[in-house]
Amino acid sequence: MRPCLIIVLIGALAAVAAPSFADEGMWLLDQIPEFEPTLKAMGMQLSSREIWDPKTNTGLASATPWLGGCSSSFVSPDGLVITNHHCAFGAIQMNSTPEHDYITDGFLAASRKEELPYKAGRVTVFKGYEDVTQAVASVIKPGMEPEARAKAIELREKELVAACEKSGLRCRVGEMFGGGKFYLFRQLELRDVRLVYAPPRSIGEYGGEVDNWVWPRHTGDYSFLRAYVGPDGKPADYSPDNVPFKPERWLSLAKEPLKDGDFAFILGYPGKTMRYRIAAAVAGDTGFYYPQRIELLKDLIAIAENEGKRGKDVEIKLASQLKGFYNSVKNNEGMLEGLTSSDLAGRKRAEEAKLNAWIDAEPARTARFGNALPEMEKALAAKNATRQRDFLLGWMPISRSSSLLAAAVIIERWSFERTKPDLERKAGYQARDERTLRQRLFNMQRNLDLPHERKVLAYLFGRAATLPVGQRITAVDDALGATGKTGDEAVTAMLDKLYAGTGLADEKTRLAMFEMDHKALLAKDDTMIAFAAALRRDTVAEEHVTDTYNGEMVTLAPRYIGALAAWKSAPLYPDANSSLRLTYGSVKGYSPRDGVYYKPFTTHHGVVEKETGKEPFASPQRLLAAEKAGADGTYGDQKLGDVPACFLTDNDITGGNSGSPVMNGKGELIGLAFDGNYEAIDSDFQFNPALSRTISVDIRYVLWCMDYVDKAHALMREIGVEPQNK
Amino acid sequence: MRPCLIIVLIGALAAVAAPSFADEGMWLLDQIPEFEPTLKAMGMQLSSREIWDPKTNTGLASATPWLGGCSSSFVSPDGLVITNHHCAFGAIQMNSTPEHDYITDGFLAASRKEELPYKAGRVTVFKGYEDVTQAVASVIKPGMEPEARAKAIELREKELVAACEKSGLRCRVGEMFGGGKFYLFRQLELRDVRLVYAPPRSIGEYGGEVDNWVWPRHTGDYSFLRAYVGPDGKPADYSPDNVPFKPERWLSLAKEPLKDGDFAFILGYPGKTMRYRIAAAVAGDTGFYYPQRIELLKDLIAIAENEGKRGKDVEIKLASQLKGFYNSVKNNEGMLEGLTSSDLAGRKRAEEAKLNAWIDAEPARTARFGNALPEMEKALAAKNATRQRDFLLGWMPISRSSSLLAAAVIIERWSFERTKPDLERKAGYQARDERTLRQRLFNMQRNLDLPHERKVLAYLFGRAATLPVGQRITAVDDALGATGKTGDEAVTAMLDKLYAGTGLADEKTRLAMFEMDHKALLAKDDTMIAFAAALRRDTVAEEHVTDTYNGEMVTLAPRYIGALAAWKSAPLYPDANSSLRLTYGSVKGYSPRDGVYYKPFTTHHGVVEKETGKEPFASPQRLLAAEKAGADGTYGDQKLGDVPACFLTDNDITGGNSGSPVMNGKGELIGLAFDGNYEAIDSDFQFNPALSRTISVDIRYVLWCMDYVDKAHALMREIGVEPQNK
Repeated sequence: MRPCLIIVLIGALAAVAAPSFADEGMWLLDQIPEFEPTLKAMGMQLSSREIWDPKTNTGLASATPWLGGCSSSFVSPDGLVITNHHCAFGAIQMNSTPEHDYITDGFLAASRKEELPYKAGRVTVFKGYEDVTQAVASVIKPGMEPEARAKAIELREKELVAACEKSGLRCRVGEMFGGGKFYLFRQLELRDVRLVYAPPRSIGEYGGEVDNWVWPRHTGDYSFLRAYVGPDGKPADYSPDNVPFKPERWLSLAKEPLKDGDFAFILGYPGKTMRYRIAAAVAGDTGFYYPQRIELLKDLIAIAENEGKRGKDVEIKLASQLKGFYNSVKNNEGMLEGLTSSDLAGRKRAEEAKLNAWIDAEPARTARFGNALPEMEKALAAKNATRQRDFLLGWMPISRSSSLLAAAVIIERWSFERTKPDLERKAGYQARDERTLRQRLFNMQRNLDLPHERKVLAYLFGRAATLPVGQRITAVDDALGATGKTGDEAVTAMLDKLYAGTGLADEKTRLAMFEMDHKALLAKDDTMIAFAAALRRDTVAEEHVTDTYNGEMVTLAPRYIGALAAWKSAPLYPDANSSLRLTYGSVKGYSPRDGVYYKPFTTHHGVVEKETGKEPFASPQRLLAAEKAGADGTYGDQKLGDVPACFLTDNDITGGNSGSPVMNGKGELIGLAFDGNYEAIDSDFQFNPALSRTISVDIRYVLWCMDYVDKAHALMREIGVEPQNK
Repeated sequence: MRPCLIIVLIGALAAVAAPSFADEGMWLLDQIPEFEPTLKAMGMQLSSREIWDPKTNTGLASATPWLGGCSSSFVSPDGLVITNHHCAFGAIQMNSTPEHDYITDGFLAASRKEELPYKAGRVTVFKGYEDVTQAVASVIKPGMEPEARAKAIELREKELVAACEKSGLRCRVGEMFGGGKFYLFRQLELRDVRLVYAPPRSIGEYGGEVDNWVWPRHTGDYSFLRAYVGPDGKPADYSPDNVPFKPERWLSLAKEPLKDGDFAFILGYPGKTMRYRIAAAVAGDTGFYYPQRIELLKDLIAIAENEGKRGKDVEIKLASQLKGFYNSVKNNEGMLEGLTSSDLAGRKRAEEAKLNAWIDAEPARTARFGNALPEMEKALAAKNATRQRDFLLGWMPISRSSSLLAAAVIIERWSFERTKPDLERKAGYQARDERTLRQRLFNMQRNLDLPHERKVLAYLFGRAATLPVGQRITAVDDALGATGKTGDEAVTAMLDKLYAGTGLADEKTRLAMFEMDHKALLAKDDTMIAFAAALRRDTVAEEHVTDTYNGEMVTLAPRYIGALAAWKSAPLYPDANSSLRLTYGSVKGYSPRDGVYYKPFTTHHGVVEKETGKEPFASPQRLLAAEKAGADGTYGDQKLGDVPACFLTDNDITGGNSGSPVMNGKGELIGLAFDGNYEAIDSDFQFNPALSRTISVDIRYVLWCMDYVDKAHALMREIGVEPQNK
């Protein structure tokens, strides 16, 4: 019975009416025809085929590459990429030295030869996708246990990916509607990425943490990269002989001034949303997940802030990590506040009661959807039984906690998985992942600070020691027990042993270990590797829980979402999963609270209004001087009487969309999306048309800064704009 | 020469064109004809004579009494007065007891008999005014020293007042344009004032200190008083036999809904503005006065907060004073920030340079205005020579510092001045002031807390000990010297002596002393009285400085302001001085910063939006329930889709205007002014059309609260509105 269900539900998801929620939705490109009349009515001048034609595999979508966690667009025939400053931050940081502080001063390559390599960077070009639901669903056999089901699906996905990648492209299977559909995405991964131009941090990050998530905003959050390929035109590692990549399509800049109410659409790669999460899951997020995460983040912040007092060099090493933690805490606190104050769990519960009543009203519906929701709740409850352990386990082997333990886990798992045939290895540890894993082991050296990492591990092990029975982490228990001590003394002794007997802090040793087979690796008796091997058994226990849960959900969630779709008889978009999506909307302000209206545009004057001369409001003198001189060029907006800085639209985006091109009805670039607004920070769970907004930097502000502040004139000409400040 | 100047300048002030600054100005009622066409064009339907007819001495102005520090209006033929909750706070507090906490719970008299007496209250009805410039100016003789000039003017003013008060009215001379004009104001002072209705503090003070000076605002800042007279219709002290006062005019409530852009005018009694202050004076305010005051206020706050820790009863006693201090600090810090960030002193200096250039351009102008500004600067510099002493001296004998020392100063000065003929006594110590002074000595008992007062005096005496040579306070120096000790020990010894030998803390003793003649008083050897007598000599020295300065300015300021008027050829309004003024404008939002627009209306929904359940956002349950039930009655606004709460206009007001009626073009009540906005907190110095706003509570919110929250139905009928929540 079960395999059929998936197919049935795909039907249910497709047979739907025109969208009822105007500007909500992160739509797959093949869904565009469903609401094309709405798009046209709003001002879209491109057809769905001009955005992406599945037959010819061409369209605007090929001009909007993924950067891995960020989005971007090509803006010249020579592989020039525009994205956010915060998306290019890695490239800027990696190339900065005390002598060349590109973070503070910005960077502008005087010629192509001087563009700076960013070896960790990837520009991943969209090459289309196809529906592989049938191929995936066919592996599910009647009577399969959930975990087996999950593993069978994983295996089939790997087979599809392996077959696809023979073409030289990178491929991945994306699961939609909780398993209702599966798509195989094809991507061209360009590995030679270079930094072309970044404004000073005081423009690209103006407002810093103070303004993060906040409107009104005045951040010039843009930077330029360039993708290079080998002389043969194929993806290649960095080489001075490489040549600029020639994209099939690139974006032109808008010629008409953008104004309030104008249509705007975005192509980008939203990372994760939870729009179909059931009430019980939201209750868990509200009552457990976010409170736990906020507490842990605050503890890690306290540790890092304290460690930073050891010296300026340590402070700098930890700065980037702390910045991430601050952002996460602000986000998570806003999220928790939003979930709590809007009582999303309660409202979902009420909606589910209505859905159940609708299902119960007809026997056919009961037969089709009836038990999905209670079974999902049961599966969730089973998974929650070890959620304290799983939460903590998730924080242990990652570089934000301890680079050394993270390295040990990567190396040990890699050599362990390599003993199996490629398709049977754990996802993330296949031959195709080797390059990425090695890069990670290399990258961690830059900010390595052992005393700080030790403090973090002491904290995590201390927490692990308080886990309830049934949720213990055996590896930690064993290691603590082996010290013959208790409490803090045991943790100290365990850490002494771990750090005394490991060679992982040394880059060469670490990279050499990555090449060793499992037996030889363990024979080295590296204490951190030995602990990683022990921890793997706990991780596998956690993977068992997850696979079981996923195996349950892959048949339940599509039925639940299918019921929702049939009940609402509206088209549904799948939750975000880093696949290319289109969101449409228009330029629109909002009222954050009674009596206040946030206008959809900020202006250049507002940059100066915020100026304090102190971080994060310390603009470059040449910016202040140009503003004071009233040098607006042709970038000024007549209605605003000033150069626009940032603008709001009601497009539906989330993390991963950063750097996305915001386009007008002609598909011309009007801005770069870079943030959401605090009042709708919980929009990953629920889109609120009155409050959810996308914050973008106006392309006119980008051009003004290029022209009047940084004199990036050659680059302006490359993107088809004649500079005025000559 | 000089007396003539004043007359010349009156000419200059009158011969002016139509107003150039649309909505700026606190206009005297006799000025209205000057801009009547503008008023009409904006929507005023009343003629200047309907507002006040100087010939018949009638008009709307008789419906807007002064409350002494606040404004108000009659809203029924039975002497019912509406004003702000914070203006009626004294009446509410005086009548509150632990058993009847009208502050928290509000108060509504079930019948007229149950209206509560407020003996310190005054309802002062406008009875017209006349120009007495000639009579005052004629006392100035050629060659007079400045101090003699000031004293001659003071004497003439007293004579005019004494003659005027023979009618049974209260009279006062108001100096306009720094002495360019003098007006004699007549007022009917009603002394039997009763509290009729006050909403709970959680409505009347909703938002408290957090929202003070802030938009968007949601405060139901209204209360009702009633003025009573003797059975003969004449002003009388409280008596149960008294009858409601019958005003000549009272206001009707607006029948049309108020909307954005609507014309609005205000009649009220603004207290003090400094719009004509010269650059040098503003520089002194920015560099000395506000910083000193903020520092001192913060020190007093620290003392009071610390003393409050002694116990709940002390905390309550000091609560009202602390509230005042918090408000002052917030105001003064905003003021200083505004003066500094707008560089008002610098801009005034630049304007003065232009004015001087204009004066210098023509010999006739040079002859007429030439030396005013430099002479004003010289007079100011002379006055500033003792400003540290004078500042501190101003804080010593007031009840906010020490009730006991304040009482001693009043009693000693009163008995000292009584030795002279009435007209020669210091202003404020004439026979006409006896009742007020006695009332002050009576009022202080309620919140008397000797340990706290002693701490404040220790602080002030400690500061006095650090004053520079030439600015010493002799009374303090002598008293400290007499202890034979130094430093803190001297202050302690001095205070020990002061407090051990005074009987002023006892109400009966205090009031009895007030009746004693000077010789007998001094013979009692009360230590605090003896110190007050010594301090009087320092005060007289300060009065000499002030009189000299005033005597200089009374001839200089009119010349300077006259030059300004001639240069700008625009009508000028005099600085506020608690005389009745009209300000006109319209309902209007504003942009506090780039990207943000403050709408001109808040709504009832916004009250609930701010609700936290904790002070100062803890609405009464019955308000929340009524809002939740959507019970808007006829008070809802169609366009807003809700009951309006507060609104903004660009009327020009300041402290003293609180409680003022805001009226539509028909002269109907649309709201009560109660605050200004933080972005224009320095509007006492400069009105900014883009930012300066009046915050008023909408009369529809008042009615909604009366109807749906407090069921003040009889009162509603009295003001001509039929309740709906029956």
